[in-house]
Amino acid sequence: MAELRVIPLEGIPEVVRGDDVAALVTAAVALEDDDVVVLAQKIVSKAEGRVVRLDELEPSAQALELAGELDPRRVEAILRESAEIVRVRPPLIIAQTRHGFICASAGVDSSNAPEPGMLVLLPEDPDASAETIRERIHELTRRTVGVVVTDSFGRPWRQGTIDVAIGSAGIEVLKDLRGARDRVGYELHATTIAIADEIASAAELVMGKLNGIPGAVVRGLSVRGEGRARDLAMPRERDLFR
Amino acid sequence: MAELRVIPLEGIPEVVRGDDVAALVTAAVALEDDDVVVLAQKIVSKAEGRVVRLDELEPSAQALELAGELDPRRVEAILRESAEIVRVRPPLIIAQTRHGFICASAGVDSSNAPEPGMLVLLPEDPDASAETIRERIHELTRRTVGVVVTDSFGRPWRQGTIDVAIGSAGIEVLKDLRGARDRVGYELHATTIAIADEIASAAELVMGKLNGIPGAVVRGLSVRGEGRARDLAMPRERDLFR
Repeated sequence: MAELRVIPLEGIPEVVRGDDVAALVTAAVALEDDDVVVLAQKIVSKAEGRVVRLDELEPSAQALELAGELDPRRVEAILRESAEIVRVRPPLIIAQTRHGFICASAGVDSSNAPEPGMLVLLPEDPDASAETIRERIHELTRRTVGVVVTDSFGRPWRQGTIDVAIGSAGIEVLKDLRGARDRVGYELHATTIAIADEIASAAELVMGKLNGIPGAVVRGLSVRGEGRARDLAMPRERDLFR
Repeated sequence: MAELRVIPLEGIPEVVRGDDVAALVTAAVALEDDDVVVLAQKIVSKAEGRVVRLDELEPSAQALELAGELDPRRVEAILRESAEIVRVRPPLIIAQTRHGFICASAGVDSSNAPEPGMLVLLPEDPDASAETIRERIHELTRRTVGVVVTDSFGRPWRQGTIDVAIGSAGIEVLKDLRGARDRVGYELHATTIAIADEIASAAELVMGKLNGIPGAVVRGLSVRGEGRARDLAMPRERDLFR
């Protein structure tokens, strides 16, 4: 097993609606086949124009009721992005997004927004965003890469956020070891590894929140595949914690 | 920001009780200051003799009642390792360990056990295990490294396991960005990053479950600090999902 390299994407300018993210990535690093290009959700969302101004939002009755000390316009944005509110303890609103992910504020966030008074939303379809960027990278470089779009999620039972995959293209998202056997012949019954989430976390270590590095390239994995990040969302009937 | 390297620990033999894990690590790779040595829980547990034979376990009444189709002796081992049973849906038993972590089977596992009919338990005190290995590495090499002990945990809402930190020494475990400001001056209120968990996940990508690589070295981070993995366990009163 060779070593893995996690290479920060440096020198990428602030992105605005319509920017060609794939071109920015290929200008920042010389990609190789089977690289996994990891991009923070913010850069993808901004390029897609998934941004709203607080002062364009008219809070609904439900938003006003939920808001408490929060800005009700912000709560309105969260409600519009949510398929379901899972748990509320102000200022925390845990919601399931329309993609099926459960996270704080349905992914609506004001940090790293283009300007104060703006909110960044998750991409409409982050798996499709990843696929579009993957195809465009192939067009620009002839390299076959994987793409993972990430966000920082809190989680039950553990402190702190970790980055996880919310969009993915060209890689195995879940690695299924069921039926495989370990060194003493014991069958690994329950082992499916969320590779795409681990890739997201590895990339976060070089990205940070403050230093303006919006992505990374993970080099040295053999994870070419067909998975979608959407498959990481646990089907409700299998979830013990809803 | 320089790139990160994740270097698999290759050529480490099957470990038995009493083995000097630090010596095995330092023989496998030339360590540098500020490397983070990541070790799968199994190798640490085996070196510490944290192994039980199924046929030495006498199931209690509670174990027999919980077992269903499971081996009641296995359930007995899980109960002995648990501070509290959090949720049961056979064959899944989600429990809080005495360290405060919530995971399947309280970390009791038969895969990669020394022989069939044996169960591997989590280390008694994984933070202390990490610290002991860290000190021993310093003694052997004069290098100041971090050590993270990992296990593969499932999680609510998302499919698949990811590796997380269950023991840690010499590094920041949580990186607190509260009060810091992003590029447009927005204060990052809720951002504490579980660095140690992200390091664990990055390392898992080169470790795998089947190829007998029990650890990795993560090189290129600046995370020297004093955290303990135990601090990653969410205090019950702050947990929305208990």
